[in-house]
Amino acid sequence: MKLLNTTPRKDGFRMPGEFEPHEGCWILWPERPDNWRLGAKPAQTAFVKVAEAILQFEPVTVGVSARQYDNAVASLPAGVRVVEISNDDSWVRDCGPTFVKNDAGVIRGVDWEFNAWGGLVDGLYFPWNQDDLVAHKICEIERKDSYRTDGFVLEGGSIHTDGEGTLFTTEECLLSEGRNPHMNKEEIEETLKEYLGVQKIIWLKRGIYNDETNGHVDNILCVVKPGTIMLAWTDDKNDPQYEISAENLKLLEDATDANGRKLEIIKMPLPRPVLITKEESGGVDAIEGTLPRMEGDRLAASYVNFYIANGGIVFPLLDDATDKQAEELLKKAFPGRKTVGVSAREILLGGGNIHCITQQQPK
Amino acid sequence: MKLLNTTPRKDGFRMPGEFEPHEGCWILWPERPDNWRLGAKPAQTAFVKVAEAILQFEPVTVGVSARQYDNAVASLPAGVRVVEISNDDSWVRDCGPTFVKNDAGVIRGVDWEFNAWGGLVDGLYFPWNQDDLVAHKICEIERKDSYRTDGFVLEGGSIHTDGEGTLFTTEECLLSEGRNPHMNKEEIEETLKEYLGVQKIIWLKRGIYNDETNGHVDNILCVVKPGTIMLAWTDDKNDPQYEISAENLKLLEDATDANGRKLEIIKMPLPRPVLITKEESGGVDAIEGTLPRMEGDRLAASYVNFYIANGGIVFPLLDDATDKQAEELLKKAFPGRKTVGVSAREILLGGGNIHCITQQQPK
Repeated sequence: MKLLNTTPRKDGFRMPGEFEPHEGCWILWPERPDNWRLGAKPAQTAFVKVAEAILQFEPVTVGVSARQYDNAVASLPAGVRVVEISNDDSWVRDCGPTFVKNDAGVIRGVDWEFNAWGGLVDGLYFPWNQDDLVAHKICEIERKDSYRTDGFVLEGGSIHTDGEGTLFTTEECLLSEGRNPHMNKEEIEETLKEYLGVQKIIWLKRGIYNDETNGHVDNILCVVKPGTIMLAWTDDKNDPQYEISAENLKLLEDATDANGRKLEIIKMPLPRPVLITKEESGGVDAIEGTLPRMEGDRLAASYVNFYIANGGIVFPLLDDATDKQAEELLKKAFPGRKTVGVSAREILLGGGNIHCITQQQPK
Repeated sequence: MKLLNTTPRKDGFRMPGEFEPHEGCWILWPERPDNWRLGAKPAQTAFVKVAEAILQFEPVTVGVSARQYDNAVASLPAGVRVVEISNDDSWVRDCGPTFVKNDAGVIRGVDWEFNAWGGLVDGLYFPWNQDDLVAHKICEIERKDSYRTDGFVLEGGSIHTDGEGTLFTTEECLLSEGRNPHMNKEEIEETLKEYLGVQKIIWLKRGIYNDETNGHVDNILCVVKPGTIMLAWTDDKNDPQYEISAENLKLLEDATDANGRKLEIIKMPLPRPVLITKEESGGVDAIEGTLPRMEGDRLAASYVNFYIANGGIVFPLLDDATDKQAEELLKKAFPGRKTVGVSAREILLGGGNIHCITQQQPK
């Protein structure tokens, strides 16, 4: 497959919205015992449930290392395609390709440089070279030409688009010292426009409180459809999240999108704070260089971290009364889609949620 | 993708001839230093040349372990697709799927049990579990349903078909103690008919002298087209190969194929005996359990071990005057195809040749 030296914008490509039709969904199989407790067995069970849920709506491919290949094949439903893809961890939203599309329906991949959410500054583990090859390997398997952004670091979870020219991101992440400190905000904006075919960037300030990704936008906001977004929200003024969400709300209320529209904003409540238990912390290997999982640490739990499938919404259940409220809001926001909740605590314990472990491939 | 519990014959599938149109060609990247000298670098160069030659005619995909992924991408021509596939060695003819096809043009894979050419009886290395997953992984990447023959061991290099109901194989290999000692010849015939959709098996006795695969048919014979085969031949009665080839010639002259045709037989001369040099032997790691490469050992050199591509023949050059003779015979036998010779000594040193390191995927 070709590695292209132009940019998607120059070639007439744009990133579609997640709500546009998919060819299928990519997932990577979790295994590292210094991030996932008990040798990743509970996480693997949770990932299987996510794969099963999405498989109701569209084809699912799971990438897995050689070590875990047999186990993944044995654990996943028969209809899931399993391919060998080494990785340093299982966040294909972040290390996978961002697919772009042109008017003729051609699909290409953007293969961002990946440095484990901050490289040697504040990255979450070392090394990350296998992760950084994942996007290329997926494009090769799918016979898609790709653009590689050497010298520009980005994770797919740090951007959301409406597919009509607007991109949402956070300053906390994209202006962080561990990503692209050699570039200023304008240069970063220009690069996003070139590689995603967007015209306008709406910058939020910060993401979810204590989010180890430096505040990925996909944990605090999602695009329901052009002109409508969903924002993670709390009414509890004593929660450190309140100030963050309120600040973003103000920004969003004042913003217009690429088409000059004001945004409709749906507030999605947070669950009660979710803390790591002693037992959960005790099941994780301690490895120098990997972010530890300490008892009592607050997890970056949020319902907006769901996956939009063809005709479906696969969203996290977090064992809280808010689960029901979240589902009702999702049903209302996505009237044409069936909502499927999946118990997601084991995914959250690894540092992300359903949106983070999935990557749509547009049709 | 589905694992089917029926058989290709029951489902109306048959193995096409190699000369029928291809979707593309599969190759695995060589790397094990206990089989390939000098850390497999000379072999990698030779494999690149084979990939380049085939790429003139049809798409090429190379499977490679995670360890060698970057190096393979950097070494191979840009047009080659590179996917991650762990393996114990690089003989995709033998561990890859045998593709079968039905009248509607549907392609499926036969995933034979693989045991490194003889398992614990006289296999060439241990373990072979990654090799045994290669066929499954290729079928998953290509989204092909497959048949798995647990309890029946076979390598793709031990069979050749005319695509019209006739299969060629050798007793030396298929009746060997290390393959299926629990089955008699009739049971093996029946299994071949079920999984390859053939009606008649033509059994040769032995393969090329000193061939470590227990005499794979693809090193001594190939099918040019239905009714015409090419047989490796020597006129030197003092060569131990003479008796083997003469015995097979008699069998073939007396045989009729599945359609009742007598066979036209083209004699392809062998090169002079090719022996391993001291330098070549010295470049190979000594590992208990892997067949050693000893100075002076005769290699199983044969020109019939070539690859038929769409519109092309990619054949081995063996630094002998016979190279030219081989090319002329191939040009005459395949008038519609362009012949491309590739220097193959480094492949031969690993125990096989161009046909052994390739696997066609029918269109």
